[in-house]
Amino acid sequence: MGLTIVEKLIVTALVDGEMIKGQRIGIRADQTLSHDLNGVMAYLAFEAMGLEKVKTELSVHYTDHNMTQADYKNSDDHRYQQDIAAKFGIIASRPGSGICHSLHLEHFAVPGKTLIGCDSHTVAAGGVGMLSIGSGGFDAAMSMAGEPFYLTMPKIVNVYLTGKLQPFVSAKNIILEVLRRISVKGGVGKILEYSGPGVATLDVAERSTITNMGAETGATTSVFPSDEITKQWMYAYGREEQWVPLAADEDAVYDEVITIDLSLLEPLIALPHQPDKVVPVSEVAGTSVDQVMFGSCTNTSLRDVMSMAHILGGKPIHHNVDAGLYPSSRTVVRESIARGAYDKILASGVRIFEPICGGCNGSGFAPQSNGVSLRTTPRNFLGRCGTASADTCLVSPEVAAASALTGVITDPRELNLSPFVYEMPEKFIDDTDMFMYPSSEPENIGIRRGPNIKPIPEMSAMDDITSGEVVLKAGDNITTDHICPAGALYLPIRSNIPEISNHAFKVLDESFAERARQAGNGFIVAGSNYAQGSSREQAVIVPRYLGIKAVITKGFARLHLANMVNWGLLPLIFVNESDYDNINQGDQLTLDTANLQAGQQYILKNETKKLEIPVTTPLCQADIDAVKVGGRINWVKNKNKKSK
Amino acid sequence: MGLTIVEKLIVTALVDGEMIKGQRIGIRADQTLSHDLNGVMAYLAFEAMGLEKVKTELSVHYTDHNMTQADYKNSDDHRYQQDIAAKFGIIASRPGSGICHSLHLEHFAVPGKTLIGCDSHTVAAGGVGMLSIGSGGFDAAMSMAGEPFYLTMPKIVNVYLTGKLQPFVSAKNIILEVLRRISVKGGVGKILEYSGPGVATLDVAERSTITNMGAETGATTSVFPSDEITKQWMYAYGREEQWVPLAADEDAVYDEVITIDLSLLEPLIALPHQPDKVVPVSEVAGTSVDQVMFGSCTNTSLRDVMSMAHILGGKPIHHNVDAGLYPSSRTVVRESIARGAYDKILASGVRIFEPICGGCNGSGFAPQSNGVSLRTTPRNFLGRCGTASADTCLVSPEVAAASALTGVITDPRELNLSPFVYEMPEKFIDDTDMFMYPSSEPENIGIRRGPNIKPIPEMSAMDDITSGEVVLKAGDNITTDHICPAGALYLPIRSNIPEISNHAFKVLDESFAERARQAGNGFIVAGSNYAQGSSREQAVIVPRYLGIKAVITKGFARLHLANMVNWGLLPLIFVNESDYDNINQGDQLTLDTANLQAGQQYILKNETKKLEIPVTTPLCQADIDAVKVGGRINWVKNKNKKSK
Repeated sequence: MGLTIVEKLIVTALVDGEMIKGQRIGIRADQTLSHDLNGVMAYLAFEAMGLEKVKTELSVHYTDHNMTQADYKNSDDHRYQQDIAAKFGIIASRPGSGICHSLHLEHFAVPGKTLIGCDSHTVAAGGVGMLSIGSGGFDAAMSMAGEPFYLTMPKIVNVYLTGKLQPFVSAKNIILEVLRRISVKGGVGKILEYSGPGVATLDVAERSTITNMGAETGATTSVFPSDEITKQWMYAYGREEQWVPLAADEDAVYDEVITIDLSLLEPLIALPHQPDKVVPVSEVAGTSVDQVMFGSCTNTSLRDVMSMAHILGGKPIHHNVDAGLYPSSRTVVRESIARGAYDKILASGVRIFEPICGGCNGSGFAPQSNGVSLRTTPRNFLGRCGTASADTCLVSPEVAAASALTGVITDPRELNLSPFVYEMPEKFIDDTDMFMYPSSEPENIGIRRGPNIKPIPEMSAMDDITSGEVVLKAGDNITTDHICPAGALYLPIRSNIPEISNHAFKVLDESFAERARQAGNGFIVAGSNYAQGSSREQAVIVPRYLGIKAVITKGFARLHLANMVNWGLLPLIFVNESDYDNINQGDQLTLDTANLQAGQQYILKNETKKLEIPVTTPLCQADIDAVKVGGRINWVKNKNKKSK
Repeated sequence: MGLTIVEKLIVTALVDGEMIKGQRIGIRADQTLSHDLNGVMAYLAFEAMGLEKVKTELSVHYTDHNMTQADYKNSDDHRYQQDIAAKFGIIASRPGSGICHSLHLEHFAVPGKTLIGCDSHTVAAGGVGMLSIGSGGFDAAMSMAGEPFYLTMPKIVNVYLTGKLQPFVSAKNIILEVLRRISVKGGVGKILEYSGPGVATLDVAERSTITNMGAETGATTSVFPSDEITKQWMYAYGREEQWVPLAADEDAVYDEVITIDLSLLEPLIALPHQPDKVVPVSEVAGTSVDQVMFGSCTNTSLRDVMSMAHILGGKPIHHNVDAGLYPSSRTVVRESIARGAYDKILASGVRIFEPICGGCNGSGFAPQSNGVSLRTTPRNFLGRCGTASADTCLVSPEVAAASALTGVITDPRELNLSPFVYEMPEKFIDDTDMFMYPSSEPENIGIRRGPNIKPIPEMSAMDDITSGEVVLKAGDNITTDHICPAGALYLPIRSNIPEISNHAFKVLDESFAERARQAGNGFIVAGSNYAQGSSREQAVIVPRYLGIKAVITKGFARLHLANMVNWGLLPLIFVNESDYDNINQGDQLTLDTANLQAGQQYILKNETKKLEIPVTTPLCQADIDAVKVGGRINWVKNKNKKSK
């Protein structure tokens, strides 16, 4: 039987277990990626492991997420990470050189190799046929240390593309269509593998828009073939010698197939507050728009910037619209300038920021109260933009540009413009000197640690019986933004757990932190798809630090589950989903955790309601054992103690 | 006897009093300027005055200071101000179009006219021979309402320039030399008037660098002649018809003369933490540099950007340096791009932000802890950059660029580069569509008020007898930062008096706000130079809001006194400074305020200690009358009531 691309990638990387769907497998990371927001925790963990150098082929650190620098905290984090990089053999990207996923795609992503990155959009590198998976900081640190990365062997979904996109319908609409069809839960436990004649109509930047935002389906990752177009991309960045072809065997077998005819797609929009609330733009056309944000790792390739400049054309944007562009990389900025796109965009009155995440992770450019914001970003979760009352919608750069001009949600085809024609540069401007290479004298590198960089909190082992109060009962689709807020006020304190803990669940419930502390031991109860969204491990560390011992839900997001194991927070799933209604906030629960076995049912006692509720855990035995000792950091420490 | 430029300007604008040094005069504002940080209070005050339209020739509102938009607050403020502008006949500048002082100089500043702006660097417009003075928000609102702006007729200092600057020695070094000679107090009660053959060697952008940073001498303002170079500048912006010549009469008499031979100047640097701690760069050359900030209203004209690009030349900056540029206006950005400067700057690894105040007012780009930051900004006060432990130095763009390349403080002449040659464009790119013009249907404009914009608190009239507790006894040199804190956490709540009041005197005394509220009526007692520092009127409004009725000190800072009159807080001065020791915190005081007369002594009774303490007030009778009715807002309201 032939192999899919995904199977070929996994077979190459496999170091533990067997490639059987649903089984736990360990893979080797050829490369790792980190950034300034999640990197501090990752590098604190890496330092704790006591190695002299990373064990990967290549590890790169980027500086793009926490860039406001309203005080010393962000800047101190950047210096800490630059020192770590110089000392431990990691390439570091200067602040302002670009967004990690865009830069990695430009300079480092290699078909056939494996990338573990402590950011959920690491999956962007699937656009060149790389097996790229997002993780928490701890897992990235483990990968840097040469330890396997564990995951459940996913199902493989073939997304079969036919036809060709119509003018003003761009790649963003393909992934919005995927989300419309399969929802933000549709990819959980799966990898999306793209194929079909439509693939050849998409360049690497477009493919990466699709794989990047594939994260929003909950998929482990997404992957495109590596073909002549991939080769052309790598040649344009002076890396053609790293290119290898990669395609599925003719007789490869998929678990599911989704077919999309690109020629039938129209401009789409994801309405507040989920990326899968997708409808045609025409359905909401005419709605007044207050803010337009161009940018993010999903949508600011040179193609995207040129396309928006084509539509804007230097015409002034509508007087009610505040519009801003976060480009993706310094190379894209310089190429855009050289091609006249910047002048057109500036002449239109669009603000141009440095190439960073910026408004996408709420670290700036928040809309006004109750404002309508159109964004080319991958996520529109409640409050992520910094303004909880704002209505954030996800669109393509073309819809964004057209709407900025008219002041209302607009199908760009209505403007009757000449079609956009784009030809990728044969060679991009060489900007590789934006990277800082590791020191040749690592022993002489001191590590600068700012006062906001606090040691990793100690997590205690789990008691045999866990009792406590339900501190919070939440609904479906709780995001990591709910649990541990994004935004400029909170991002700088992500490496300070005691401080950020005060803001846990703030957007849902101002008093959560206080109540959790008072409860001492506590539970969280939630609906399905708990903790979707980003890879931030603080969404586990913070509740755990506040005394939460277990979270009982109808289902968890993959990345979050891995973080729960790393930081010792027990995930439990209702055997009968209807039991969700049998627990209220404030109820007292008890669970015998002395002999937790994988695959078994346990009885959760609701002492308040005198009910017995069957639950199970999605963890394998090794993971349960790690949770029981207080997480994988403790597990690694114990292992190291034994080996000494 | 002939007149100086300053006298000609004042004679033209005079509407109250006589032009006699030391006497109180009232002048008419032809123009006003406001920005998003101080504008909310100014416009709330303007609204309270009940007028239908501003009474100036021209009022412009800019959006450049509070641009992080970490949540809804900044964005809501911007919308409020845009609505106010549209309704009341004010031109509004789009967010990101540029820094207020630079844009005003480009598009609106007119020789011979008067400008009142609620920002201390309003004085930049003196570069075209305009009488431009910084004020608090309320005084700017009064100017918009057509009321006179009051000041004490200042002394006039002639700064006589000879010679010509050497290569790599630019205008910044002229104002640093002025500061080196006369100190940060040397301009108090004075206006600096530039003349001499050296003037003709400086273009308007260079002159404006000098007048702008003249604010740091404490001078009321600075002014240059209006000559052919001024005309050329105005022609380049399509405004040659607004030009008029302006020069001092041959027999004009000055109170003081300072002579500077430009050809003898060398690169200078202001060391931490005062703009007058000026030494030659050569004296500290070789000191390691962590951060370089290009920008601010003082130093990012097209000339400055071209000069830094010339020195950087696309060569990579030192690996230890994080460097960033905040350009001054969209026009400068577009001209810089068109001339290849942006590509060079980007290729060097310098970050380029949008054209805003940014790092200069601590709303971004803060240095690391204990970092050394070279800045082309006007101020290096302790903590202003956002990092209290950082060492901030003020330099020219040329010293900044050279030091960014080498990683140490560097005299640019040491790099042996070809001299920089700059020719101002004959015509600048026309970017006037960046402005939003007032509505033609003001009656249809609704005002959007975000939840953080609170109405101005009503200030009650003063009772005939004022009794209360001494809520705080403080020492000498209390700053406005002590009274009402600065910093990224507090800037967004400056328009929310109830909220920011909770933080009054926080750095001195956490319980002040609570105690003041409980006291109901209260007094503050302090030493000399009370409320030095910024012009923020919140340093008066907040104590007044909390119930403080009078402040008794050994002396007040000038700008604060004006704000006390505006907001109805009575300033009292000990007749005998030793009486400071006869009042303790918690003492009960009583003052008969029924017949307060200017220049007289009153008896303050310390009921607790059974002592009588003679005090006086530094106010004139008009100001006393305003304080007695609860401040000038009430005074204007009463006046409007009478006229109806």
